[in-house]
Amino acid sequence: MSLAGDASTAARDLRGGEEARLAIRRGGMSGPTSGLAPGYVQGNLAILPRDLATDFMRFCHLNAKPCPLLAAGAPGDWRLPALGADIDIRTDVPRYRVFRYGEIVDEPADIRAYWREDLVTFAIGCSHSFEEALIDNGIELRHIARGTAVPMFRTSIPTIAAGPFHGPMVVSMRPMKPANAIRAIQITTRLPAVHGAPVHIGRPDLIGIGDLARPDYGDPVPIHDDELPVFWACGVTPQAVVAAVRPELCITHYPGSMLITDRRNCEFAIL
Amino acid sequence: MSLAGDASTAARDLRGGEEARLAIRRGGMSGPTSGLAPGYVQGNLAILPRDLATDFMRFCHLNAKPCPLLAAGAPGDWRLPALGADIDIRTDVPRYRVFRYGEIVDEPADIRAYWREDLVTFAIGCSHSFEEALIDNGIELRHIARGTAVPMFRTSIPTIAAGPFHGPMVVSMRPMKPANAIRAIQITTRLPAVHGAPVHIGRPDLIGIGDLARPDYGDPVPIHDDELPVFWACGVTPQAVVAAVRPELCITHYPGSMLITDRRNCEFAIL
Repeated sequence: MSLAGDASTAARDLRGGEEARLAIRRGGMSGPTSGLAPGYVQGNLAILPRDLATDFMRFCHLNAKPCPLLAAGAPGDWRLPALGADIDIRTDVPRYRVFRYGEIVDEPADIRAYWREDLVTFAIGCSHSFEEALIDNGIELRHIARGTAVPMFRTSIPTIAAGPFHGPMVVSMRPMKPANAIRAIQITTRLPAVHGAPVHIGRPDLIGIGDLARPDYGDPVPIHDDELPVFWACGVTPQAVVAAVRPELCITHYPGSMLITDRRNCEFAIL
Repeated sequence: MSLAGDASTAARDLRGGEEARLAIRRGGMSGPTSGLAPGYVQGNLAILPRDLATDFMRFCHLNAKPCPLLAAGAPGDWRLPALGADIDIRTDVPRYRVFRYGEIVDEPADIRAYWREDLVTFAIGCSHSFEEALIDNGIELRHIARGTAVPMFRTSIPTIAAGPFHGPMVVSMRPMKPANAIRAIQITTRLPAVHGAPVHIGRPDLIGIGDLARPDYGDPVPIHDDELPVFWACGVTPQAVVAAVRPELCITHYPGSMLITDRRNCEFAIL
């Protein structure tokens, strides 16, 4: 999916988080948010009925590397003031996915028709933030250079269960020369709110990955002979875990179309 | 070499840097300093005539990862106040090596007979400091568990030349599980004054190491199937570089018998 012509041109001029989000709210921008509002935190979205919310929040707390919780809304509240004064989570994401009992039933640009008084919103940190930091440090990211989705893999690393939520950790993989891998570990260590340091490096077989050329999500990338695969905990983990529970209602962002916040990535760096 | 009976027993009770150093000065302790004065910085020693000193200091500055300079003495001065108020570099190291034109001519416990008004002392950070931090974080170090010297390798990574000083970087290797390797990168990043983060991980062939079972210095260690080799820049680099220059006079510590300082390792951590 791509931005519509005029909106696309306008999007490139949207520098601030609020500015970009308001443009999305006004409509006409249903595409991926990658590259919009550089420097601002983008988030994965999960909206669940209240009866699952506590367990899901506990799951995030227990599995902070794949599920770094940026903010949780009050039950029934479509605002998220911790991430932006005026966020309306029903309208401010370019595109949504609505699941009923685990099946996709709609992919709307607005979820006002689905809103209920028992829904709880979760915003979870996303790799866009740390990828920006890596690129700023001169580290090439293969999937971005190729214009494809980062390759992601289910692993043999278990998450810690909370209520009905359990399942394997999903990781994203970025191939790097060893010196860049070391630098990338240093850079992402500073960003624990957006997945933080890698969970694994080298040897995919040790975490249950059989073939790097066949990712479970996203697209494969070539790995050069002088590179190691570096694995980060991935925000697809909570999505996969929620999907397995097949809740009566669940709403997420459409892949790649994230919530843009007013918070800057640098606010989430620990040093 | 081992500590003599009584001295060895006494050594275990030497907790402070100054206390341990004064005991060494009094004599009877000519063995390795590993495990003495835990928490205190130990240093590699290089003493050179003044006509080589500036180039050697420039070499350290240009190659800070293998040659992290802790302190340099004034020409002819056997004190080193930056590292300890009362250091006498002629007596305070358990054992020395004296080189003439690159050949070992003596291994004394005291170098007062060799001291000259043109000698310049260099103390260079040592891996004992970061190994202590790794062990404190629960990371097993194979060579320590086996009671052997860490395996070290000449690499294809060049140093940056300064005057006559040039040559390959020497690295030390510690095998670790990938998650521990990531943690070790984080821990040693905090300690740039004592070699800092690794320079390489995995794939020894990429830095010119043909066989991990045949180190150029130290002893080999087994690498388990679920481990990666992790490589740190090593303080043997300046020793090898100086040896290649074959200076008229050069004095170093005897391997493993380091200078114990009054400074604590934590003083050299950046965060």
